[in-house]
Amino acid sequence: MALVPLVEYGDAPPAVRAVYDDIKATRNVDWINNFWKALAHDPATLARVWAESKQVMAQGALDARTKEMIYIAVSVTNDCEYCIHSHTAAARTKGMTPQMFHELMAVVALANANNRLANGYRVDVDERFRSPLAP
Amino acid sequence: MALVPLVEYGDAPPAVRAVYDDIKATRNVDWINNFWKALAHDPATLARVWAESKQVMAQGALDARTKEMIYIAVSVTNDCEYCIHSHTAAARTKGMTPQMFHELMAVVALANANNRLANGYRVDVDERFRSPLAP
Amino acid sequence: MALVPLVEYGDAPPAVRAVYDDIKATRNVDWINNFWKALAHDPATLARVWAESKQVMAQGALDARTKEMIYIAVSVTNDCEYCIHSHTAAARTKGMTPQMFHELMAVVALANANNRLANGYRVDVDERFRSPLAP
Amino acid sequence: MALVPLVEYGDAPPAVRAVYDDIKATRNVDWINNFWKALAHDPATLARVWAESKQVMAQGALDARTKEMIYIAVSVTNDCEYCIHSHTAAARTKGMTPQMFHELMAVVALANANNRLANGYRVDVDERFRSPLAP
Amino acid sequence: MALVPLVEYGDAPPAVRAVYDDIKATRNVDWINNFWKALAHDPATLARVWAESKQVMAQGALDARTKEMIYIAVSVTNDCEYCIHSHTAAARTKGMTPQMFHELMAVVALANANNRLANGYRVDVDERFRSPLAP
Amino acid sequence: MALVPLVEYGDAPPAVRAVYDDIKATRNVDWINNFWKALAHDPATLARVWAESKQVMAQGALDARTKEMIYIAVSVTNDCEYCIHSHTAAARTKGMTPQMFHELMAVVALANANNRLANGYRVDVDERFRSPLAP
Repeated sequence: MALVPLVEYGDAPPAVRAVYDDIKATRNVDWINNFWKALAHDPATLARVWAESKQVMAQGALDARTKEMIYIAVSVTNDCEYCIHSHTAAARTKGMTPQMFHELMAVVALANANNRLANGYRVDVDERFRSPLAP
Repeated sequence: MALVPLVEYGDAPPAVRAVYDDIKATRNVDWINNFWKALAHDPATLARVWAESKQVMAQGALDARTKEMIYIAVSVTNDCEYCIHSHTAAARTKGMTPQMFHELMAVVALANANNRLANGYRVDVDERFRSPLAP
Repeated sequence: MALVPLVEYGDAPPAVRAVYDDIKATRNVDWINNFWKALAHDPATLARVWAESKQVMAQGALDARTKEMIYIAVSVTNDCEYCIHSHTAAARTKGMTPQMFHELMAVVALANANNRLANGYRVDVDERFRSPLAP
Repeated sequence: MALVPLVEYGDAPPAVRAVYDDIKATRNVDWINNFWKALAHDPATLARVWAESKQVMAQGALDARTKEMIYIAVSVTNDCEYCIHSHTAAARTKGMTPQMFHELMAVVALANANNRLANGYRVDVDERFRSPLAP
Repeated sequence: MALVPLVEYGDAPPAVRAVYDDIKATRNVDWINNFWKALAHDPATLARVWAESKQVMAQGALDARTKEMIYIAVSVTNDCEYCIHSHTAAARTKGMTPQMFHELMAVVALANANNRLANGYRVDVDERFRSPLAP
Repeated sequence: MALVPLVEYGDAPPAVRAVYDDIKATRNVDWINNFWKALAHDPATLARVWAESKQVMAQGALDARTKEMIYIAVSVTNDCEYCIHSHTAAARTKGMTPQMFHELMAVVALANANNRLANGYRVDVDERFRSPLAP
């Protein structure tokens, strides 16, 4: 029960079509999924969110499949039904096997449980764990 | 400001020492971090949580470093300070570089943003995304 | 798939009818939405939640439309489908335009992303930001 | 207890200085707050997050003060200490009075409570609330 | 690092003193905890939140200790440090033993884990579980 | 719209059947609910989650009905539709009355509201509330 009707390619203004075309080209697909068709009511948001997603989800120091699984972990924790479905599909096309998905779910469940134990007991951070990224 | 004092090895009953010893052996370290010392007030929980963590975080279809990064993604989304520090340290020992961490944060931020856009606009799941794990 | 059947006006005890009447009078409408019909199984909760909602959402230092948009921001962050629909409808009757809604969603998405970046990097609060409401 | 040291202007590479300069110019301030100094370890993220924040938080159909209050509502719901402090300070410079802040908190508390009541009772969305943004 | 200074009894206006007096009388204590002293900047919110808390947390079909433990379960899930400390202290005065607290934490952790598994796998609700509260 | 098909008893491998049999025997029921049939795709997770659930939810210092209500409080706060339905049904079989459920919801709503007030005002923990579980 979407709050807005979807903006189809044929009805879209040029700025929206340009984004749709780039989505298709970048992903090598011939269709646009509903997320973008809903955002298209606000072309500035559509362009910004797509540019950001394209940059952040691209292969980098982390491979694209790992990024999809991190995205799923967040989406499950936040319970975003749309994102769970769309990014599980994306991860599948990038080689995530069912066994990888099961292990992903097991880690997500474990982290959610242990987050609460650490916060509930108000455990102080060990001195040795401080500043792990400091040069 | 922990709710409970920490249970040190010297003061621990045998059931707790057995878990502490297994933590040290499994991780090849010579100390126990505060999380386990807080849980040790309830030996049944300590044993269960450690057994589960050991099994879930082990190398499998997903490598141990990827699992640590998924764990961090959840901990950042839930804002568990203890878990962010301890698992960032763990991921570092398993080879996560600062650049990998930055990309991890960027994906976590993007997913949290887009989860809200998808939920806020109440976007319906595309038919093509259904049941992506079905055989 | 509600957990309880809805309590319709004709079947409601006097204490519930009194709240229903006040909702209609306050909002100048001739119907009662499902939220109140579900709460009506517990007349004490119904009366308390309505009294609180009436007081908090009324025009004050903040106008009623701004309050509705703040309510939507929280509901999107928590993913409350019912509240997103009902308060978007309420905000619309108070003059929220589609463009305002799009900007509201963009701020909600940005804040959710940046909340995670600030928490993930464990950024310390700047000295200059402390106690901004102190007299 | 930040995970990374802060990148000061004097130590920053040109790409980071350019963002710092734009932050100062846009906000008409002579200092950089810690959030940006932490992100600066990843210049691509710094530039992207700043560009997005600048665009989204600017005056539009919603005024800048209302946007700051929406941002605070999300940050309180997610419990981001840094963001609560920094955006309450920002909202104060844009004219938010203490009374406005109190009303903002009251709406945030009410929405968080009622979100749980609606979800807990699994209340079905009223037919009349559907598609409130449809043209 | 509170956003507001605390309102002490000696500096409080009569409307605030009346609430402080009722808190002391209801709880049979001779001091006021910080939560109320912060809310006191907005006397209307102070009075409303206290009235609601007094009513909801009182002995009813559920005993007061069970209510405190439910309150803790929510506060741990949301990571409210203040509320975890204050309501654990309250539950202690109402007879919660350390063992009860450990079991409470174990259930909270389990529920947080299983919530994510159910949402992550998108498990459909069994027909037999529908409308469990229907008369 | 589950991500995986359900594993029925007749199609299940022996390791899964053993868990199904133990669920039936422990709960004295003759059917398996969907949660377990979805997890059964990963027999290791199925066995681990069931063993943990069985241990944690059993009668202890807290009675089983109280544990179910704590579980519901978490599930409502996280908005897990499946868990709300299944554990409300379970609590009903253990004697939770509709009035108890209404009071449970009222406490959950109150805690969610007050958690945000305490975090929003950044209220410092009172010295007297520290370490309430210390011996």
